[in-house]
Amino acid sequence: MDAYLAIVSKREVRRYRAEPLPEDVLTRILEAGRATGSSRNRQPWRFILVTERARLNALSTCVSRPSNLLASAAAIVIALTSPEAAFDGGRAAQNMMLAAWALGVGSCPNTPTDATDVRRLLALPDDVTVATILSMGRPAPGERRPPRAARPEAVLARIDRRPLAEVAFRETYGDGAARA
Amino acid sequence: MDAYLAIVSKREVRRYRAEPLPEDVLTRILEAGRATGSSRNRQPWRFILVTERARLNALSTCVSRPSNLLASAAAIVIALTSPEAAFDGGRAAQNMMLAAWALGVGSCPNTPTDATDVRRLLALPDDVTVATILSMGRPAPGERRPPRAARPEAVLARIDRRPLAEVAFRETYGDGAARA
Repeated sequence: MDAYLAIVSKREVRRYRAEPLPEDVLTRILEAGRATGSSRNRQPWRFILVTERARLNALSTCVSRPSNLLASAAAIVIALTSPEAAFDGGRAAQNMMLAAWALGVGSCPNTPTDATDVRRLLALPDDVTVATILSMGRPAPGERRPPRAARPEAVLARIDRRPLAEVAFRETYGDGAARA
Repeated sequence: MDAYLAIVSKREVRRYRAEPLPEDVLTRILEAGRATGSSRNRQPWRFILVTERARLNALSTCVSRPSNLLASAAAIVIALTSPEAAFDGGRAAQNMMLAAWALGVGSCPNTPTDATDVRRLLALPDDVTVATILSMGRPAPGERRPPRAARPEAVLARIDRRPLAEVAFRETYGDGAARA
């Protein structure tokens, strides 16, 4: 899949097919997380891959949309080894979700509402925090899926986002749109 | 460029060619930021594109590696409209840096050491914070650049990162490598 098209077409997918994801696909997604750049190359993350149904169901009680995890084929929990590392955690999450998308796998970040139970379920040590839980699986029928071929401009024209002129400025804040 | 190869081959680039980046390339990078997913689709970011030499030079005094910005053809400052948005800011940064990489542009995040001067230089309002300053440009001779063609596995075998078994676990923290 084309890199730029993958980036601009990636959407959160919250409903998944029941089928498990192949081990090599899961490994490739984790490798995308491992390869992520980070401040001073500290790699302040640990990834916990969860595929056991009972554990996914238990994790579903710790997030605001339990259905995301009840339906997911797998989850990757991003744990951070530094409380200052949320930005780097977001970079790793995006890398893994984009890699998944390019491999035909939908995903969505889930912020825990109850980190205590997540800690217990995953046996997390005290010095790590939970950045997010990525639910994932093949998109269910009717869900968004990676486009086989599309013009990025056409994809961008349809997305549910603020227009560029509202979020991008030139030289100083609020000083007109960045687009020439 | 292939999406998965772009993701696993992306490296920080800190030395750039002097040539300016075309406006359409800059716009495509900003569009990759705009398209990023965020918690509740809040899009808690504003992007300030800086290409004026004097302003880039002034920004260089606000980061720990001034040379990154003294040499850059452009910078994109990611400002956050919520103090809780660092994770989403990291997602947007990764999207823009990957889009840049796929377009042949190197980049690197620079955390401001002095946000006060950044605020003044960019006329930032009080209610936004600076997540990072992305320096960017065509890679200088000898710098890393996007591979034209390579096997992702070969790229991953060479990267300066912890091995997968150290960062990825299965079902619970520390419970063996995630790779089967």
